[in-house]
Order: sequence, then structure tokens, then C-alpha cells
Amino acid sequence: MMEAQVNDPAGMELSHLRVVLVETTHPGNIGAAARAMKNMGLSRLYLVNPARFPHADATARASGADDLLAKAVSCASLDEALTGCGLVFGASARLRTISWPQVDPRQCAGMAAAANGNTEVALVFGREHAGLTNVELEQCHYLVHIPANPAFSSLNLAAAVQILAYEMRLSLDTEAAPPVKLDRPDTTLATADELAGLYRHLEQTMIDIGFLDPARPRQLMRRLRRLFNRAHLDRMELNILRGILKAAQARAKDSSRG
Amino acid sequence: MMEAQVNDPAGMELSHLRVVLVETTHPGNIGAAARAMKNMGLSRLYLVNPARFPHADATARASGADDLLAKAVSCASLDEALTGCGLVFGASARLRTISWPQVDPRQCAGMAAAANGNTEVALVFGREHAGLTNVELEQCHYLVHIPANPAFSSLNLAAAVQILAYEMRLSLDTEAAPPVKLDRPDTTLATADELAGLYRHLEQTMIDIGFLDPARPRQLMRRLRRLFNRAHLDRMELNILRGILKAAQARAKDSSRG
Repeated sequence: MMEAQVNDPAGMELSHLRVVLVETTHPGNIGAAARAMKNMGLSRLYLVNPARFPHADATARASGADDLLAKAVSCASLDEALTGCGLVFGASARLRTISWPQVDPRQCAGMAAAANGNTEVALVFGREHAGLTNVELEQCHYLVHIPANPAFSSLNLAAAVQILAYEMRLSLDTEAAPPVKLDRPDTTLATADELAGLYRHLEQTMIDIGFLDPARPRQLMRRLRRLFNRAHLDRMELNILRGILKAAQARAKDSSRG
Repeated sequence: MMEAQVNDPAGMELSHLRVVLVETTHPGNIGAAARAMKNMGLSRLYLVNPARFPHADATARASGADDLLAKAVSCASLDEALTGCGLVFGASARLRTISWPQVDPRQCAGMAAAANGNTEVALVFGREHAGLTNVELEQCHYLVHIPANPAFSSLNLAAAVQILAYEMRLSLDTEAAPPVKLDRPDTTLATADELAGLYRHLEQTMIDIGFLDPARPRQLMRRLRRLFNRAHLDRMELNILRGILKAAQARAKDSSRG
């Protein structure tokens, strides 16, 4: 990373970005993704349970981006890979069934650039054939949909990484692309792991106060997650919400005791 | 080509574009380029003296874009591949030595889109390691330079095709990226008066559970209002939140009674 940044000033401006590849099957795709990243000045690769890595195919396809492979961070879960991230984009085919905030690559890059300075940003890519699961998609604040031929819409993994990385690089020298908000420059957004903690706390509290029956959870947590992801909580807001939950739990405990 | 166009209206608008690969060494790259093209709705592939083609690696990497490979036009020279083209772009690293008109991918796509209707357009890509020769570059009207890390600027051939094809597709729906939006067309947003009711309910609940001291309200309600306003609650979300508050109040009442 250091070398790349020395030679490529843009690399420093993109250093808040991490690319997360979830359960990649073909090691060649990991290598090709690393090459695509390095070509565009991105340097931080996270791998969630790759099928085979390290692997000669990864090194071959990296074509000189071996340094990114060497310092790739291996993770046991997507949660772990998202630790510290305040803004999470999941690459996905257009979804018909779930309505989740969707952006295109250019909007995604504009938002990621706007977040630079105080927020870590993750770009998450799913399995070659199956993409991301619904549970994984729900850990993303936005889905990024790459415009494609509807009759043949599945891009190669590294090709998708290439397009997003390209837009990230372009976003640096663009006065053109209209800045897409996140207009709270002074706040520190809550990270993905902090949000995960909030959701666990919220779920437990709803059980404690008798609102959620764990045997029949329905869509409740999904809906609430979507709501709070959309709001881009900052850290103080998150702390307030946790304070409210704690107080509600304390009263519920009193009442069951009483 | 016909099938793709039937299913992808954009394909018709991109049918004046041909992708020309010059003396490609690795057949896998030809297949990956075909896939990238088809993903974006391009369909016309020209191959100038490929080292090995057809080849199993090309078919494998095409991943379903076999139709483009099957109708790829094999040519003995770049001249032949450019026959009929009125506008020719050559993909190239930034050149220091030759001064030739240079454009970036977005400009290239804009020019190609503007030419549609009366002009055949070619996008020419050179050899994996050596690119295009000077003689070949001089057959191009413009050089297209993909922005890249100057310390690691050589993109994989199919990755370069992917980026240009992506820009070609984007150029079709150019009413500038729409403002990011929460596309929740099917939902009814909560009204201002419903929100006001929620905020009163929230405030009373926080008092009931002992989280808010009405004598010292601080900035609490202002912060929460701002948070929920930002989220643009829909009616169902609002009802869920009120349900949670109601359950928390019931427990608080039990506990004060017990």
C-alpha cells in the first residue's frame, strides 16, 4: 500500500476504501480483482472465507498486484470484514423482491468520496454464482447495481470490481459528478459493527418487553435494520438509542420481578 | 446478436459499435472480453490474428457469451477489421512520445453515442503486453486512455474492454445520474402529523421508562427528531415503532405498580 501511495497520490485519497470478497470460489478471480484494484489505486482487500487462497491462479492473475494479495485480510465472517466501516455498499443484481436503497456505480463513488476523511467505506462482492445472501445484503446500507444487459446481466467478479474501482478513481478528479450528500461532514458515522450491536440489543429488548416473539419473528428485524441503515446513524445517535433500550430493558426486568 | 437485441433494447442502440482485438495472445482474454461486451449490450467482435482461436479457454471465460464468439469476425489485418468505420478509438496507455488526440472513456462514449445513426465506430485494443504499434495507433482517430495508477497502469485486456463497454452503455441513458433516492415507490410515507404523534409518544415513553427527565430534557428530542426525519419513515415503520413504544410503556407501568 505504501509504495502504491508514494507513486500514486490518488491512492492516498482512496485509502478509506476496502473491497470485500465473500466466499469467492475461483482464486483466479481474487487475483484479477486485486489487479483491477491496484490499477485504479485501491489497496485494501478483505477476503471472507475464500474457497482456495493463497493459490497460484490468484498470483498469476494478479499480474504484479501480489502486494495486495500478500496483505489481504482473511476474515471468518462478513461481520468481521465490515468492522469499523461506516458506509457499506453491496454489489448486486437489481432486486425485484426486496426494496433496499439502490444506487448506481457513479452515485456510489460520489457517496464514498464524500465520506472520505472520517468514514471507512466497504464495497462488498458476493459469490460468483450466488451473489450475496439476503442476510448479507441486509448488512449493506446501499446496493450498487451495475447497469447491464437484462438478458445477460451477470458480470465476472473481477469485472464488477473493475467498474466500481474505476468509478472510485474517477470520482477524485470530477467536478462533474454532482456530489451526492451525506451532508453531515462533522459527524462520525456509526460503524457496521456498532450497528450490528445496536440491532442485537434492539432485538433482545423487543423480546424482553414482549413485542417480539422469537418463535415468530416475521419481517420485523429486517424492516428495522433497513430503517436505521437508511438513517446513517452517527455515533451519538446510536448511543442515545442504546440508552433508551437499556432503560426499557431495566423496567421490563423490574416488571417481571414484581 | 439478434437475440440479445430482442431482450435488450440498448443492444440495438449499440449495434454500430465493434470491438477489435489485435493479436490477442491468451484465448481466455477473448472469452472474457466477449462476456464483458455482452453484459453491456455490445455484440460485434472482430479478431485480428488471434494467437489461438477458437479455444476452450475462450469458451470457458465467455461464460455464456458463446454467441459473440461464434459470430466473431476473423481478420488478417487491422485495416480489414476497420473497413466501414468512420470513427476509430484506440485504447492505449498515456503516450508521452506521440502527440495524438486523446480522450477519456466517458468522452469516447459520448462521441460514439453522438455518431450513432450514420457512422460505424470501432474500439481497438492491442496485445496484452505490447499494446498497439505506432502504425496501428495512427490508424485510430483518437486514443482512449483509461485513468489508472501511474505506478501500475496496465489493465487486463478484458478489464479495459469492460470499462469502455460500460461507458458506452451508460451513455445511452444520459439524463445525468438522478439524485440518489430512496426508491420505495410502493410505500406510503408517514405524514407530518403522524410523525408528530410518534415524537410525542416517544417522549412520553422515555419519561415512563426513566430515560428522560422532563425537567432536564437537554437536546434529546431534537436529536431523535432529526434522526427519524432523515429516515423518511413509511407508515408501516411508524406503526412498528409505535408498537415497540407501547410495549415498553406497558412494562414500565407494570414495574411501577409491582
